[in-house]
Amino acid sequence: MKIDGTHYRSIWLSENGWSVRIFDQRQLPWRIETVELTSVETAARAIKEMWTRGAPLIGATAAYGLSLALRADPSDASLETNYKLLLATRPTAVNLRWALDRVRTAARPQRGERRVMAAYECAATICNEDVETNRAIGEHGAQLISSVAYEDPARPINILTHCNAGWLATVDYGTALAPIYLAYDRHIPVHVWVDETRPRNQGASLTAFELAQHGVPHTVIADNAGGLLMQQGKVDLCIVGTDRVARNGDVCNKIGTYLKALAARDNNVPFYIGLPLSTFDPSVASGNDIPIEERAPEEVTLVHGKDPHGNPAWVRITDSCVQNPAFDLTPARLVTGYITEKGVTATPRDLLHFSQTGAVGNRTGSL
Amino acid sequence: MKIDGTHYRSIWLSENGWSVRIFDQRQLPWRIETVELTSVETAARAIKEMWTRGAPLIGATAAYGLSLALRADPSDASLETNYKLLLATRPTAVNLRWALDRVRTAARPQRGERRVMAAYECAATICNEDVETNRAIGEHGAQLISSVAYEDPARPINILTHCNAGWLATVDYGTALAPIYLAYDRHIPVHVWVDETRPRNQGASLTAFELAQHGVPHTVIADNAGGLLMQQGKVDLCIVGTDRVARNGDVCNKIGTYLKALAARDNNVPFYIGLPLSTFDPSVASGNDIPIEERAPEEVTLVHGKDPHGNPAWVRITDSCVQNPAFDLTPARLVTGYITEKGVTATPRDLLHFSQTGAVGNRTGSL
Repeated sequence: MKIDGTHYRSIWLSENGWSVRIFDQRQLPWRIETVELTSVETAARAIKEMWTRGAPLIGATAAYGLSLALRADPSDASLETNYKLLLATRPTAVNLRWALDRVRTAARPQRGERRVMAAYECAATICNEDVETNRAIGEHGAQLISSVAYEDPARPINILTHCNAGWLATVDYGTALAPIYLAYDRHIPVHVWVDETRPRNQGASLTAFELAQHGVPHTVIADNAGGLLMQQGKVDLCIVGTDRVARNGDVCNKIGTYLKALAARDNNVPFYIGLPLSTFDPSVASGNDIPIEERAPEEVTLVHGKDPHGNPAWVRITDSCVQNPAFDLTPARLVTGYITEKGVTATPRDLLHFSQTGAVGNRTGSL
Repeated sequence: MKIDGTHYRSIWLSENGWSVRIFDQRQLPWRIETVELTSVETAARAIKEMWTRGAPLIGATAAYGLSLALRADPSDASLETNYKLLLATRPTAVNLRWALDRVRTAARPQRGERRVMAAYECAATICNEDVETNRAIGEHGAQLISSVAYEDPARPINILTHCNAGWLATVDYGTALAPIYLAYDRHIPVHVWVDETRPRNQGASLTAFELAQHGVPHTVIADNAGGLLMQQGKVDLCIVGTDRVARNGDVCNKIGTYLKALAARDNNVPFYIGLPLSTFDPSVASGNDIPIEERAPEEVTLVHGKDPHGNPAWVRITDSCVQNPAFDLTPARLVTGYITEKGVTATPRDLLHFSQTGAVGNRTGSL
């Protein structure tokens, strides 16, 4: 990922070698600010209050959070307490549990300073693997984009995405956006419809920012507009990310994803999910078993942006009672395919197979 | 309609007997301000810039706008020029043309002062009929609401609506909301899910305001949330308004309506359209023939509300390129029924029959 031409990851170790830096994503796109996480409490707060977000990046942040906890206190009690503290920050994304489990498994057999080192090494591995994983998702997805038939080769391939599943949601590249970045880099003409993604507007503020930094042509639309655009033939495919995929292939993702999947099906627009296999959770049978996070009403009632002078500001749009569920479920029947680091597949069973076999390969699933 | 207990219509003649007052709906819900329309130019601007809106109310405002034009200049040229001026203000709602045609037909045979009087009389008739029409829609719709089976009689009937099709969109009562008001007044327990309705947030600012003034329990949600609520069984039926219904029953309404209709179908939730027959346009064969208005990008990029001190303010949420289509099409196949002043019907053919027969009756269509 590049900001003003300089390469960054979304999370990195400070020069001191133990604290961690992330972007304060609440300030984007207006201010590019980083925050230093020096304790597990700050890491937990960063996840809970969404200074950082995105299923894979939540996992990476939690992995470093547990490392910070062990650095302060490497005891067994600290390991268990802070595992639970971090796990409780957000309920929906399974990568959180997946990353915490990895760090705990790596740290448990060790004691003292060695336990701390094992935790940090595991967190670093999770981050490095995430980059490789997303690059592989990008490879498979870029092939897919280039193969999409479109009527007029003179016009770009129009891809609709919801929320932010780009490099700001991962350590680098992104999941849903990785295919778009790689396609763009290979001179495949692409144009992205960016759902603004109420209530937090991650599309308008994060996805649009990312795409602009990379130079990818894009247009922000109200979440309500995607259906009409599909009716008008202005969407060639949809790619979204996910916070958890159940064993049967049901997809839990940012609220509103389901509505776009319905419109895609109604208009014969392919609907793809970009995901690392760490987001696949075979332990839940279907989407109905995934907990849906309910977030604060202020996410709906207060809209953040910049005021007429260019300063950060918010306005209240209603005093009414508000409900704010953060995710919805897209049934597997509405999903055309899953773009993973091990290939693209239309079959949820392949996700289980992929997740049970070894490292990142180039196998392409049965699509 | 009542504001703080006082009865109002949404448009009324000033005490001078010739200028017209409307609410400046851009200020709601924070400020209740009225605007005086003293010329056809102001009336046209009020429609175009959405000081006033809603298909039936656009028609009523245009009717008085043409009356104002004739008062200033009752010539044939003035009649034709100002008919066109008003017709060009907004392209999608058919009530605009319907109301202008009525006034022109009434005015044309007359000359001078008599022509002016004929126009004003026709405009007043349009307004009075609108009130009666909407009350009748409310009667039919309230019966429908009371008949909706719901599993637990202890909980209210949950109705989802999109945008604002209440009294602020009509002269009084509303179209989609009239059934809700009448049901509430008859002690049928109702609760309304109010889509905020980006980009202009007419749900959060107008529908929620109306419902609160009437005392109807309601909850504002992001437009993205309705699908999940239906998946969770929290929506018993949907009622929305419309700007134009084609001969085949396709419904043109506020952008995002189609997505809710898809979700309703996917979850077996009945999806109703509340409309006066003046919104039915047999001259267009299908929804594809209805022009979809594209509005200014600032409706998406600038969000209006009140600042932390309670003053009117806006924030910019993105500097990106934006597209802003204002309406979408809900195919007739997704509509459970049309609630009209002449009854409820599932059959578009009945709309034609209703519209060709006489005054408001109590006939209930074949549902």
